[in-house]
Amino acid sequence: MSLTIKLHDCHLNLLNNNHLGISKPKTKVPNLKLKFRTKPIYHSDPLLSVVYNSTMHASSARPPQSAVIKSSLIDPDGGALVDLVVPESQRAAKALEAEALPKVRLTKIDLEWVHVISEGWASPLRGFMREDQYLQSLHFNSLRIEDGSFVNMSLPIVLAIDDETKERIGSSNNVGLVGPGGDLVGVLSSIEIYKHNKEERIARTWGSTAPGLPYVEEVITPAGNWLIGGDLEVLDRVKYNDGLDHYRLSPRQLRKEFDRRQADAVFAFQLRNPVHNGHALLMNDTRRRLLDMGYKNPILLLHPLGGFTKPDDVPLDVRMEQHSKVLEDGVLDPETTIVGIFPSPMHYAGPTEVQWHAKARINAGANFYIVGRDPAGMGHPTENRDLYDPDHGKKVLSMAPGLEKLNILPFRVAAYDTVEKKMAFFDPSRAKDFLFISGTKMRAYAKSGENPPDGFMCPSGWKVLVNYYKSLQTEEASQQQAVLST
Amino acid sequence: MSLTIKLHDCHLNLLNNNHLGISKPKTKVPNLKLKFRTKPIYHSDPLLSVVYNSTMHASSARPPQSAVIKSSLIDPDGGALVDLVVPESQRAAKALEAEALPKVRLTKIDLEWVHVISEGWASPLRGFMREDQYLQSLHFNSLRIEDGSFVNMSLPIVLAIDDETKERIGSSNNVGLVGPGGDLVGVLSSIEIYKHNKEERIARTWGSTAPGLPYVEEVITPAGNWLIGGDLEVLDRVKYNDGLDHYRLSPRQLRKEFDRRQADAVFAFQLRNPVHNGHALLMNDTRRRLLDMGYKNPILLLHPLGGFTKPDDVPLDVRMEQHSKVLEDGVLDPETTIVGIFPSPMHYAGPTEVQWHAKARINAGANFYIVGRDPAGMGHPTENRDLYDPDHGKKVLSMAPGLEKLNILPFRVAAYDTVEKKMAFFDPSRAKDFLFISGTKMRAYAKSGENPPDGFMCPSGWKVLVNYYKSLQTEEASQQQAVLST
Repeated sequence: MSLTIKLHDCHLNLLNNNHLGISKPKTKVPNLKLKFRTKPIYHSDPLLSVVYNSTMHASSARPPQSAVIKSSLIDPDGGALVDLVVPESQRAAKALEAEALPKVRLTKIDLEWVHVISEGWASPLRGFMREDQYLQSLHFNSLRIEDGSFVNMSLPIVLAIDDETKERIGSSNNVGLVGPGGDLVGVLSSIEIYKHNKEERIARTWGSTAPGLPYVEEVITPAGNWLIGGDLEVLDRVKYNDGLDHYRLSPRQLRKEFDRRQADAVFAFQLRNPVHNGHALLMNDTRRRLLDMGYKNPILLLHPLGGFTKPDDVPLDVRMEQHSKVLEDGVLDPETTIVGIFPSPMHYAGPTEVQWHAKARINAGANFYIVGRDPAGMGHPTENRDLYDPDHGKKVLSMAPGLEKLNILPFRVAAYDTVEKKMAFFDPSRAKDFLFISGTKMRAYAKSGENPPDGFMCPSGWKVLVNYYKSLQTEEASQQQAVLST
Repeated sequence: MSLTIKLHDCHLNLLNNNHLGISKPKTKVPNLKLKFRTKPIYHSDPLLSVVYNSTMHASSARPPQSAVIKSSLIDPDGGALVDLVVPESQRAAKALEAEALPKVRLTKIDLEWVHVISEGWASPLRGFMREDQYLQSLHFNSLRIEDGSFVNMSLPIVLAIDDETKERIGSSNNVGLVGPGGDLVGVLSSIEIYKHNKEERIARTWGSTAPGLPYVEEVITPAGNWLIGGDLEVLDRVKYNDGLDHYRLSPRQLRKEFDRRQADAVFAFQLRNPVHNGHALLMNDTRRRLLDMGYKNPILLLHPLGGFTKPDDVPLDVRMEQHSKVLEDGVLDPETTIVGIFPSPMHYAGPTEVQWHAKARINAGANFYIVGRDPAGMGHPTENRDLYDPDHGKKVLSMAPGLEKLNILPFRVAAYDTVEKKMAFFDPSRAKDFLFISGTKMRAYAKSGENPPDGFMCPSGWKVLVNYYKSLQTEEASQQQAVLST
């Protein structure tokens, strides 16, 4: 999702796409309890109201590792949600085992992938990819599973090692994984080491090998020449201790919460940018339309991406604060919204990556996925154009193998209506009344401290952004001062 | 298939791969006639013996366009073989219609694709790809068909036009296609024009954007910035008038010939290089093993690629002459071999292209496909390594969506056995006895007029190559002379 509010220019109407497999809800809601849920108790942070009321959030209540979670809405890929956290009773023994193995040191972003895999976002994947999975991902954006059907798997989820580490592993069948801070994270078993052809991986994942692709520069270029696949087990849930871990709900936790709320539809909204009123409009409009279709309790999963993002994106903590203001202000309804952090790092790989974003939300229990203009896209790093055709994301998503069971909701373009003085769906019959505010323009407003047009974003959310950019400028100024005075 | 005879280094045994879905033949051969075929009458060209005996080769006996060909061995993709040649009775009317339309001028290679599509090699594709097909091909190497299943489609089969042609087409719904010589070729109907993002197409197809990829330099770089898709109809079968058209058997003709011969297995061998005794060994060995498995009449489809190849490959006419010597010499048995030209241009796109090579042979009626080391591969254009991992081709092929019904036969490595003085399957227990003769080495032999080791290639076939390289040198010398004397 780009920061731009020129959301898209397609001609598809929201929720009016029979060819996309959207169906009326079943008249009978499974697991319907006779007693309806009581209104949740609100906490100071409205985003968390639902979470803190959920019994599943008590960390000691971890379900057994092998339990199969069945959601009333959508099955996880492969039928069972993967959970690779070693049960507490076996943790000490597993740590001893890991300690004795050759070690692989993880980067910060490797650890984000460990997080993703261990909680089942990539179900049915049970570890870093072996070569046969890597090749299927690279060539087919999908994996064939045992019953002959396909699950979507568009991004290679791989772990790179260098020559020295490969040498050290030798003929060992298993390795221990060590976090960036030196702490033991887990074990990778029945390993397979194979060549890391970076050029091919980049070209097939991004459809470009241009210098300046953020994930490539950050992760792939400095990585080793080998990939190591195997079955993952982690000693404990991955935590970041950044004050945001309570937002990091696992797919299992989200599914339980949806069930607890008796959601009969869950619509996911992936974002890596602040929420403006154009986003809010389409989320609220989606809910309204789902109600019109007969769903009784559609729940919004507002799901900001929490892993690696490029340096000029708004950082996660600022975004979470901004999102919380949007809910506090009532722009989104806390009672029908769940906010969680999606732990994946960002690839900026457009149509390839949007499949991953959607597939992971199937595993989290969402049966509707909202997709806009140029999802997971960015400007071409060396040419003056978008890296991807802005319409390809939604097209590819609607055709992708393994995503058949997910309802894709392409959304209509929203823009600032200068007459109504609010964000509204673009009306081509009075085009001149609409103002498209680009991400660059919005950032320029925030940096200069100038206000955007009334109704673009709720004032408290906007203030969060202004303060962030002000703090950046202060920081820059003091750095320049430091340089000057040395 | 590379010219090198270091065919591969994998550990898979030919016909011993249960996981690849190879099954014993059905005990009852469908369509078995009580009277067995009479021995074919041999013509001077042994490659053609089978063809010239076939009743289907009479050009007037074209079956009706809509007829569904059912083979006893393997169904065409999509269930029906596509045939886009306008019936003779409608040809004049169609030509008049085409004449009145805006025109698109085809290059020589565009026309090769017209040939490929019109005869059904790419079934169920009925024309140049529209954007939804292009995107599926690029991202998933497969197309979803109406019943929800997938057919393989790894290469984008597209037609590029420039801005001026797009302008000329305007809002017309159909265009006429004109050959490189100015002749009317056919019509493309219900057209769709969409952007030709060359960088993305190249990166996703080749897994590289390095300068020097032959098809890219020849076809894509000079092409226009738009792609035009639509339904194809051709006025007549594509002919080349190069003395080789009788080798250009359509999938329909090949299927008829397999049926006429009562083949109970057809194994296809794709090549773009001269046949040496290592190739012959594995083709003969494959037949022997198919017989061991209980097949009664396995037929080899020796299927050299006839479209665009890079300048340093041996040209088609020389290869066909060489192949004919190999059959004359009895290295391959003319009675159990059919030689045809596969009209596709070559992409040199390795694991992506080998899928196309295999898929097209399904449509031609082959139910076994032989795959060796580094299929459709080449050296990296700018680095000192193979462009593709030599084992990826066979791995990708064995996992590719839409190729499930095809038996993939990865072959064992053959090399020159210096003790036995012949090409033999490599025996690692006496590795030092084996000599790997690379393609470069072989070309060097042929250029210098030096003979390769006895038993590398039949002498008459070798002579064809030597003569070809001698003629090249003469030509070069006279060109140099011409330059010097001007």
